[in-house]
Amino acid sequence: MADLEVANKDAGRSGQGVVSLLTDFGLRDPYVGIMHGVLHARAPGVPVVDLCHGVEPQDVVAGAYFLAHAWRYFPKASVHVAVVDPGVGSARRILVAEDEGHRFLAPDNGLLGGVLGRGARVHALDLDRFGLPNRSRTFHGRDVFAPAAAALWRGASLLDCGPSVDDWGRGVGDPGPDATDPDRIVGRVLLVDRFGNLLTNVTPSDLGSKGGGSSFRVEMGGRSYPIRGTYGEAAPGEVVALVNSYGGFELARRDGSAAEALGAGAGAEVLFVRVPPR
Amino acid sequence: MADLEVANKDAGRSGQGVVSLLTDFGLRDPYVGIMHGVLHARAPGVPVVDLCHGVEPQDVVAGAYFLAHAWRYFPKASVHVAVVDPGVGSARRILVAEDEGHRFLAPDNGLLGGVLGRGARVHALDLDRFGLPNRSRTFHGRDVFAPAAAALWRGASLLDCGPSVDDWGRGVGDPGPDATDPDRIVGRVLLVDRFGNLLTNVTPSDLGSKGGGSSFRVEMGGRSYPIRGTYGEAAPGEVVALVNSYGGFELARRDGSAAEALGAGAGAEVLFVRVPPR
Amino acid sequence: MADLEVANKDAGRSGQGVVSLLTDFGLRDPYVGIMHGVLHARAPGVPVVDLCHGVEPQDVVAGAYFLAHAWRYFPKASVHVAVVDPGVGSARRILVAEDEGHRFLAPDNGLLGGVLGRGARVHALDLDRFGLPNRSRTFHGRDVFAPAAAALWRGASLLDCGPSVDDWGRGVGDPGPDATDPDRIVGRVLLVDRFGNLLTNVTPSDLGSKGGGSSFRVEMGGRSYPIRGTYGEAAPGEVVALVNSYGGFELARRDGSAAEALGAGAGAEVLFVRVPPR
Repeated sequence: MADLEVANKDAGRSGQGVVSLLTDFGLRDPYVGIMHGVLHARAPGVPVVDLCHGVEPQDVVAGAYFLAHAWRYFPKASVHVAVVDPGVGSARRILVAEDEGHRFLAPDNGLLGGVLGRGARVHALDLDRFGLPNRSRTFHGRDVFAPAAAALWRGASLLDCGPSVDDWGRGVGDPGPDATDPDRIVGRVLLVDRFGNLLTNVTPSDLGSKGGGSSFRVEMGGRSYPIRGTYGEAAPGEVVALVNSYGGFELARRDGSAAEALGAGAGAEVLFVRVPPR
Repeated sequence: MADLEVANKDAGRSGQGVVSLLTDFGLRDPYVGIMHGVLHARAPGVPVVDLCHGVEPQDVVAGAYFLAHAWRYFPKASVHVAVVDPGVGSARRILVAEDEGHRFLAPDNGLLGGVLGRGARVHALDLDRFGLPNRSRTFHGRDVFAPAAAALWRGASLLDCGPSVDDWGRGVGDPGPDATDPDRIVGRVLLVDRFGNLLTNVTPSDLGSKGGGSSFRVEMGGRSYPIRGTYGEAAPGEVVALVNSYGGFELARRDGSAAEALGAGAGAEVLFVRVPPR
Repeated sequence: MADLEVANKDAGRSGQGVVSLLTDFGLRDPYVGIMHGVLHARAPGVPVVDLCHGVEPQDVVAGAYFLAHAWRYFPKASVHVAVVDPGVGSARRILVAEDEGHRFLAPDNGLLGGVLGRGARVHALDLDRFGLPNRSRTFHGRDVFAPAAAALWRGASLLDCGPSVDDWGRGVGDPGPDATDPDRIVGRVLLVDRFGNLLTNVTPSDLGSKGGGSSFRVEMGGRSYPIRGTYGEAAPGEVVALVNSYGGFELARRDGSAAEALGAGAGAEVLFVRVPPR
């Protein structure tokens, strides 16, 4: 993650943050567009960025993963709204948090587990103070999250939003490998992206080397794949493992879909096995 | 709809409107992006919101429903552009209308039927005055709607746009239940959303009670479902009916898709039957 | 293309350009949203337009076609970023170019072939000067294109970006018909749009007439289709050919999908055959 930190230091020069939205709402319905409407009504001039709305319904783990690998690329003073919220309408809490100059709004279900560090401040949102009047029990993205994000963007403090809490849920947190042994790491596929790449929960540091991996091979479904530096080092149609832009290993097929080629998806087991020296 | 009205009163404090776009163009092609380009070229600094582009091709009823339940959440002085337009290239009229401080552009095919009230002002757009030169006969979103929206956002009046009309089409208007009887309401599924929820044309007021519904059960495809307050009151996997964020009843399956579970889609009949007191 | 030129002359009145993004990243993952984040971090206040992210993975020809038919609708001083980039991570060059007051960033793989005219200025981007520190080898959209676009939007010159080049690749350039004969033009389907329209590489000028086409019929898969002026001139369900908003012929089915009706897709052959005078 060293790149992210450096990038962030360089990037956060401006005082103007944006509101970013990450949801599992998809773009078929007007749910996301209505959130934009509320934001513009409550915070005229706010720049709104659709970080991602393609999270599978209620896939909190994927939402947390995306957010954890994205927020540092935004300007400081941004407000990141994450709504993957199976508990909407129940008494679940909504968190409002601050870390490294960014602020976050999300249900207390682990979405922020990969984001917030030790120095983070976390409060619980007072729904009555920030929700729209007569809020619905099914669409808090519109009735609670968007109005609260508008207030934060306009300068509301965490204390304005509600009381400090320290028992919030980190969720799965860092979804690292199930088992690590210096010679054999047992990981799994976290998600499949648009290109059919299989994103795993194994990183170079799990292999005991920062940049390396060359002394390992990857096994999946009884077959073995080499580790390469980039897509271009694979032969056309070949499946290889490489470090992707999130900083983890993925299996990718040059000019095609690894998910299709391997018939694998989220949850599938993937092994990293040390190659014995000749 | 009481919530919407209240929300709107509170929300519309700013003088800065946005241009919202609702189409059936989808996001696979650059059609929507090109409309954004024209808007920025003609109205520098305009904030543009994609309300929804996932309307099924030529589904005017769904487009009208989405718009009717969305526009009040936007700031006053917004311009709402709706292009679900099977008649493009024919002599169909384009309406430009104003109601409650919002303005609207849409073909005269019923898209505005659920939006405009008695006090609305409605004009017919003069295509020659606002269209791009050499406009195409197939893409009026780019060649007519976007330039006209830019002009409206910059301050053009309805009279600038064309003559007043009073014979515009309300279309299906309020798509209420087919038959209502105090004890048995015959409705249907209007559309299926991203989560597989079956959105119906039955509202709490059709059941003779504002908040209630507890004395009714819902029947669909020969099976019976209870009415609940929120998703969280259903057991995992259970299908229930509840009032959704549009203010109507929907059938939803906790942690799943009601559309899949029931094998039902748009047009399917749904009954609300009063439960006899014990 | 006469319309485009006229439209552009009229449209480009403002000095405020936008950054437009065209990629094959899709919207399921946060890749596009992260690019927005970097743009806002590096160029506060920048208006960003999603031109299109639905290009099929690595379909450089479709990307080039979309861009060629879209950029003139944007305001002058815009920066158009196109990332359909099978060579990411290899030593392929990234071009930064200027033509008619617009600027472009794209890998040197033909994406700009349909855009740049004889008067264009083309440079090769110095990745070390504009990339994020520790850039990845798989996501140059985030680590190179977005930071460079931000710099261009803020006023960097082409010379700031890197040295002038004259051996850049025009790619397929204008993807015209395979064979033209005054009476028989052999073209093909370039792509299928959201509506199931079959967009071909045949234009009215290939038929020797600007507006015409009425003396030709279209043959595809052994069947024959008439040429019409607009969708509305077809009978319900009928498949016809017409000039679409890109200025080329497409096969379209009224109230349906021509791709489904004909069972045809990208690459399929389409004949334009002169109808003998009676």
